Amino acid sequence: MQFSPLLEQLIETLRCLPGVGPKTAQRMALQLLTRGRENGKRLAHSLIQAMEKIGHCESCRIFSETEFCNICASLHRDPSLLCIVENPIDVTVIEQTSSFKGKYFVLLGHLSPLDGIGPEEIGLPKLRLHFEQGGIQEVILATNPTVEGEATAHYILSLAKQYGIKVTRIARGISIGSALEYSDPNTLMHAFDGRELL
Amino acid sequence: MQFSPLLEQLIETLRCLPGVGPKTAQRMALQLLTRGRENGKRLAHSLIQAMEKIGHCESCRIFSETEFCNICASLHRDPSLLCIVENPIDVTVIEQTSSFKGKYFVLLGHLSPLDGIGPEEIGLPKLRLHFEQGGIQEVILATNPTVEGEATAHYILSLAKQYGIKVTRIARGISIGSALEYSDPNTLMHAFDGRELL
Repeated sequence: MQFSPLLEQLIETLRCLPGVGPKTAQRMALQLLTRGRENGKRLAHSLIQAMEKIGHCESCRIFSETEFCNICASLHRDPSLLCIVENPIDVTVIEQTSSFKGKYFVLLGHLSPLDGIGPEEIGLPKLRLHFEQGGIQEVILATNPTVEGEATAHYILSLAKQYGIKVTRIARGISIGSALEYSDPNTLMHAFDGRELL
Repeated sequence: MQFSPLLEQLIETLRCLPGVGPKTAQRMALQLLTRGRENGKRLAHSLIQAMEKIGHCESCRIFSETEFCNICASLHRDPSLLCIVENPIDVTVIEQTSSFKGKYFVLLGHLSPLDGIGPEEIGLPKLRLHFEQGGIQEVILATNPTVEGEATAHYILSLAKQYGIKVTRIARGISIGSALEYSDPNTLMHAFDGRELL
């Protein structure tokens, strides 16, 4: 037996959420109907608002419903330092350290030609505009330490070089609190290459 | 740093879904915004439809947007057999066995006085009406084999007795394909009590 058509439809559409399979979707739908109808309506309302009103910051491309995000609009951030990250969540993680006072540029992905994601898709024309406008003294590449992240970093490096801008890459090495024996060879290699003089 | 207000609101409301914590909600919201806006709107639409239009079957209380659910409306089901379950999902599970041809009554919970869930909340006045109308020859109690499920079954047993209706409880024993050594003492005790004469 199937559930009623509207319930089946709700279960089916809940599966668009990442990590939600048929069983989880069923449990979510039944729980919302049983004791969360108000929450369900509130969720629907936020979804519509978010999907329709959230765009991208004109300057850094992060999700924002205003023309410029808080960080880009702030007068307390140093516009001569530009940190480039792949995802909006990376900005949150870096902000938690409270150690970076510059601005960000969010690629919303990484170069992946096989998936049809080229320079346009990750906003590099806009990044080039930032470079052209001048005022940036250092570009900090904070893409993920994966093959795609490194390739993307490399591409941006050559772009920035055309404008004579200094480019740095965040250090790759062993994590604080971890044990050497659990580090992978690639990370260890980077840790040796990037050793500091004491 | 926080995300933009609408994004924060979406993350917060996504947490009303069971099993969704702050990290998962963040990932869901960002993924919907990045490459699932149409899905997000469809989900919002289904949610509103489901929350507003899905009610309960007039006869068995299962979720349904029509007055009577498919099973209650069917002429091929035996109305003299009434199986009582706690949750809508239980109906689906029993239907998968294709072995039960009677009708259902869905409690949508179990008796739990401490949570304020009494006979009214699990639809027992409506169940009593079914008993009064006559025509039921056997009530099969298929509530969960938990303390609350057993207590609820016991309560319904005494209710049905008042109308002289035959009441059975689905067998509790060892699961097919399991090993005796992994059965808990309580289940084994029930398996011995309910042993069949061969």
